[in-house]
Amino acid sequence: MIDLRSDTVTKPSLEMRKAMYNAEVGDDVYKEDPTANELEKYAAELLGKEAALFVPSGVMGNQICLNVLTEHGDEVICEKDAHIFQYESGSPAALSGLQLSLVEGNERGIFSSEQIEPLIRPTSAYYMARTKVIEIENTHNRAGGTINPIENIISISKLAKKYNLFLHLDGARIWNASVETKISVSDYAKYFNTVSCCLSKGLGAPIGSIIAGSKELIEKAFRVRKAWGGGMRQVGILSAAGLYALKNNINRLKEDHEKAKLFAEGISKISDLCINKNLVETNIVMFSPKNISVDEFLSKCKNKGLLLGTGKVGVIRAVTHIDVTFEQINEAIKIIETIFS
Amino acid sequence: MIDLRSDTVTKPSLEMRKAMYNAEVGDDVYKEDPTANELEKYAAELLGKEAALFVPSGVMGNQICLNVLTEHGDEVICEKDAHIFQYESGSPAALSGLQLSLVEGNERGIFSSEQIEPLIRPTSAYYMARTKVIEIENTHNRAGGTINPIENIISISKLAKKYNLFLHLDGARIWNASVETKISVSDYAKYFNTVSCCLSKGLGAPIGSIIAGSKELIEKAFRVRKAWGGGMRQVGILSAAGLYALKNNINRLKEDHEKAKLFAEGISKISDLCINKNLVETNIVMFSPKNISVDEFLSKCKNKGLLLGTGKVGVIRAVTHIDVTFEQINEAIKIIETIFS
Amino acid sequence: MIDLRSDTVTKPSLEMRKAMYNAEVGDDVYKEDPTANELEKYAAELLGKEAALFVPSGVMGNQICLNVLTEHGDEVICEKDAHIFQYESGSPAALSGLQLSLVEGNERGIFSSEQIEPLIRPTSAYYMARTKVIEIENTHNRAGGTINPIENIISISKLAKKYNLFLHLDGARIWNASVETKISVSDYAKYFNTVSCCLSKGLGAPIGSIIAGSKELIEKAFRVRKAWGGGMRQVGILSAAGLYALKNNINRLKEDHEKAKLFAEGISKISDLCINKNLVETNIVMFSPKNISVDEFLSKCKNKGLLLGTGKVGVIRAVTHIDVTFEQINEAIKIIETIFS
Amino acid sequence: MIDLRSDTVTKPSLEMRKAMYNAEVGDDVYKEDPTANELEKYAAELLGKEAALFVPSGVMGNQICLNVLTEHGDEVICEKDAHIFQYESGSPAALSGLQLSLVEGNERGIFSSEQIEPLIRPTSAYYMARTKVIEIENTHNRAGGTINPIENIISISKLAKKYNLFLHLDGARIWNASVETKISVSDYAKYFNTVSCCLSKGLGAPIGSIIAGSKELIEKAFRVRKAWGGGMRQVGILSAAGLYALKNNINRLKEDHEKAKLFAEGISKISDLCINKNLVETNIVMFSPKNISVDEFLSKCKNKGLLLGTGKVGVIRAVTHIDVTFEQINEAIKIIETIFS
Repeated sequence: MIDLRSDTVTKPSLEMRKAMYNAEVGDDVYKEDPTANELEKYAAELLGKEAALFVPSGVMGNQICLNVLTEHGDEVICEKDAHIFQYESGSPAALSGLQLSLVEGNERGIFSSEQIEPLIRPTSAYYMARTKVIEIENTHNRAGGTINPIENIISISKLAKKYNLFLHLDGARIWNASVETKISVSDYAKYFNTVSCCLSKGLGAPIGSIIAGSKELIEKAFRVRKAWGGGMRQVGILSAAGLYALKNNINRLKEDHEKAKLFAEGISKISDLCINKNLVETNIVMFSPKNISVDEFLSKCKNKGLLLGTGKVGVIRAVTHIDVTFEQINEAIKIIETIFS
Repeated sequence: MIDLRSDTVTKPSLEMRKAMYNAEVGDDVYKEDPTANELEKYAAELLGKEAALFVPSGVMGNQICLNVLTEHGDEVICEKDAHIFQYESGSPAALSGLQLSLVEGNERGIFSSEQIEPLIRPTSAYYMARTKVIEIENTHNRAGGTINPIENIISISKLAKKYNLFLHLDGARIWNASVETKISVSDYAKYFNTVSCCLSKGLGAPIGSIIAGSKELIEKAFRVRKAWGGGMRQVGILSAAGLYALKNNINRLKEDHEKAKLFAEGISKISDLCINKNLVETNIVMFSPKNISVDEFLSKCKNKGLLLGTGKVGVIRAVTHIDVTFEQINEAIKIIETIFS
Repeated sequence: MIDLRSDTVTKPSLEMRKAMYNAEVGDDVYKEDPTANELEKYAAELLGKEAALFVPSGVMGNQICLNVLTEHGDEVICEKDAHIFQYESGSPAALSGLQLSLVEGNERGIFSSEQIEPLIRPTSAYYMARTKVIEIENTHNRAGGTINPIENIISISKLAKKYNLFLHLDGARIWNASVETKISVSDYAKYFNTVSCCLSKGLGAPIGSIIAGSKELIEKAFRVRKAWGGGMRQVGILSAAGLYALKNNINRLKEDHEKAKLFAEGISKISDLCINKNLVETNIVMFSPKNISVDEFLSKCKNKGLLLGTGKVGVIRAVTHIDVTFEQINEAIKIIETIFS
Repeated sequence: MIDLRSDTVTKPSLEMRKAMYNAEVGDDVYKEDPTANELEKYAAELLGKEAALFVPSGVMGNQICLNVLTEHGDEVICEKDAHIFQYESGSPAALSGLQLSLVEGNERGIFSSEQIEPLIRPTSAYYMARTKVIEIENTHNRAGGTINPIENIISISKLAKKYNLFLHLDGARIWNASVETKISVSDYAKYFNTVSCCLSKGLGAPIGSIIAGSKELIEKAFRVRKAWGGGMRQVGILSAAGLYALKNNINRLKEDHEKAKLFAEGISKISDLCINKNLVETNIVMFSPKNISVDEFLSKCKNKGLLLGTGKVGVIRAVTHIDVTFEQINEAIKIIETIFS
């Protein structure tokens, strides 16, 4: 099986397993797990923040960050295809009482400061939700792994300052943006009050995400993590994998981007598909079959040994990652060609 | 002062005050207030529903209805200028843990069933919010008092049935729609599981709204009203005004619509204003000054004895009502003419 | 019918109705209702607080105060028979995410600072709820209208200061305490950050409560009131009754206390009842039938023209008020005597 | 260091580490992790339930179970020293809007059905929280690892049936109760709708808990776990440790109980301590120093190489576990003797 459904399907490598096997551990609820502490220190430095915290998932990472920046009844501005709106169970509302103010970005899922300024509620309007946070997802999953230009981020961060708003980065795949643009993750992170990044996607760790921010915010986050059941015990087992991932698997993401481009190039020649290969910036490829349904297409691919996922309604999503080779990409292209021949 | 800020500024008439003065009352927490019971019975019949409940405000009416139809983590589809999103403090999220899925209607704030079908989440997607309710505001305040065509409502109600979704009507000004289209309020209400309608806007009562639905839903609503602090004691005082309003002030809304058209016609001749008078369907007129700011315009009007409100960013809102005469409308037009001459 | 179920059943007097009939009103959502503004100013002064706010019910009063003093996940210390635990629908948890830490007071429902000090959570215990508020109900309804001694309140307020906790007074019947002890309501209120007091119980207004506190807290409360649907329009109608009640009906509560003592004295001679008449301090009398069930007793009383309520399991509650005369009290005693003869 | 603070400090053994190293994994968000699936199947059978779910912590286990059994505004009856009230951050209120109705059990933290029957709210009392769940913690941590007699559980389960209430078992240490009484965990679990049990305490796994119940409830739990950020990816790593623990580490808990009794016996001879050694039923020992403060006592022990924890105010807690030997227990006794000599 060639599995391009998501970069979350990656399995820990032998080296990573060894790191877990040998990990020194302690009770992290007492903050005594040396490997967890090392990971949090390492990640904070990498992200250029005062403090960082390991959490069991990307969802918990984003939701804790939103929670510590807000109060019930606040509003968060985000793109209408943002992960926090589309794929997080309505938890901004259910866990933190937050209203999302949705903006439609341009074709690449990117909104400008001009677009969102009119959405900021006047503080005198006591009958409105209080605008409190602007959220940016970089790279933007549902838009196709697109990279938010640093100039745009800077412009939005100026807007946030002007209106005393907080900025949160859903950086589940910030590593992909950084590797592609050569802008360091800390140079991205510095515009944001809180950052959430996944260890378990392209980086190949089995479990976990990192959130980072000021010491004060991460202390609040530490409390919220416990309250939501995300405080774990000998978490060094997982932290060892995370540390290994951060130290060894970031630069290699470049390869995944090449695989994605190769794949996009290959399938763009198939006239039964609709794809804009110029939009492929990192490790995600979005395309649509023209004459058969998404379900039929997915099922035919699966029968031939290729697993693909979905994005927006009518859209197929292919994600490249560490556990798929260039050869398999070529094979995947052939499988799709066969379907339409 | 000519007050066109809102139809909420209307004061109870002498006759309405007499009705309150003479109201027979009891303790409504024990359901022993005869006037409250009469109002709820009368309103249920008028709306063609099994049961109705008096609530202290339109906000509480909408929020209780959304609450009884849903669970935390559910999603409500509504127009991006809906009152529940724009003017209700983020309470769908804060009170009931609900995520709003915003759709942009056409120029009149009206979305079609085709537009929203793709937004309905597949029930198998356990990581998404659960689509549960479609909300329609009729007339639509922020879109300019526009009327949602009954055929469109029917089409959306079919979609709701197909996907097992509930329908809620924010009918704060459903009376205005009904008077204009001659479709009875019960003929509107029958497509909806819950309805909320205001007694305190065009109908001229000082306080209160009515919600209506099945016996089962209203029993749940009765409990929620108490839990949120909306259970009051000798509420017959207010119910008497509500009954008076329902019995005497519905048909006269037609006049308010004429006043709005007169006003729109009048100011449409002023070249410094931007207005589409064809969009004026009920008692609300939206327009924009071309060369001065909204704040400056409002302030100049106020200095000359005319109070106006605002809608979307950059838009002035004028609302006609029982406490403003045709003469005052003509005077209001003159005041605006003077400002630009 | 002699109705001793509650002091909430009182109906507005003719004079109070006239005050409502003549009330000058405006749109309170714009803060333009002169009578509402006057009531809030008057009540703030009476309670010795910077600001006050009219709310539709005692439940909303208590719940808003708790909300503005806390964040989700905080803890409120209160007596195990407190109204906020027993009769407010679980709303501290449902509306504000608050955990109640219940203490059993002595026979009169009164806890001491020594009793509650061990319940205050250490701030370092990040896995515990955060103790934030101590709540006192004075007079204490379910304990039988008992008065919390001012020395005890002072001692608790010192404890609150020591641990940086807030104090909330559920003063639904603080007027009764004040009239009985001759300690002014402001002398009670000064130990509390927030106070909630009812206009609709002994004071005889049909609807409404007052909350009071610092300007900052009441501004937050104003926002919360709107968000929960408690913001109303021409609220001067109700405020006029509230003003009348505050100006005319406080001192006469003394009479209700005499009626309660008369009633307690009378029924204490009936050997089939269990009652400690020394516990009757204000307008509430608690007692238990010895040989028949509560339901049977209530039903027999009702058949003879006497309505009574219930308190804790197995306990009958009788409440005296403005709408019951001394003669009716004597008659009520006779009815009960008859039942057991 | 001899660490008796908690059985949560245990570190994975070499065999357990090997199991993790060799674990077959997949993406558990797609339910494709074979080891996670095996663990959940194995645990469901062991507990005699239709389905089970792995969760990252005991807190998440309890909180998800309470969530799926209830709606906001419901009430849960539990002991006043229950873990869910004392040590779970106020999350019943903050995550699920639940009010806790606290009962004081007898000296061993055990309440009877007679005690709680009067706390069940009448369903007609629409202004009260709705009683929905009775929660039992077995063994009861804060009461000293006490075992709730099966006859008492049966009696409470009859009460629950009578009033249509659900029963939740906080079985973090149900294994200890089972090993001691020889009643199987499924014989305990069968009286409960939901069960939560820890893999990471006495059983020695580094991370995780299991919840179990009907298929329908666990499907709801699966959704909630994702919404709260507890859905993880290649969770087979952790499940392998859990499986190893369930298969190898239950019976050996008997040893921990012997260690606890040895410890209690030893320190009961020290006249400066207050301890009732007859209350030691499993692996927890509670005692109090008579003449020095808890902080001073803890600090002195630590200086001599013995770590202890705390329970209620003024109480020391010692917990025996797999990583402490009988020799170390004897040494611990000597250390404490030295302190008082």
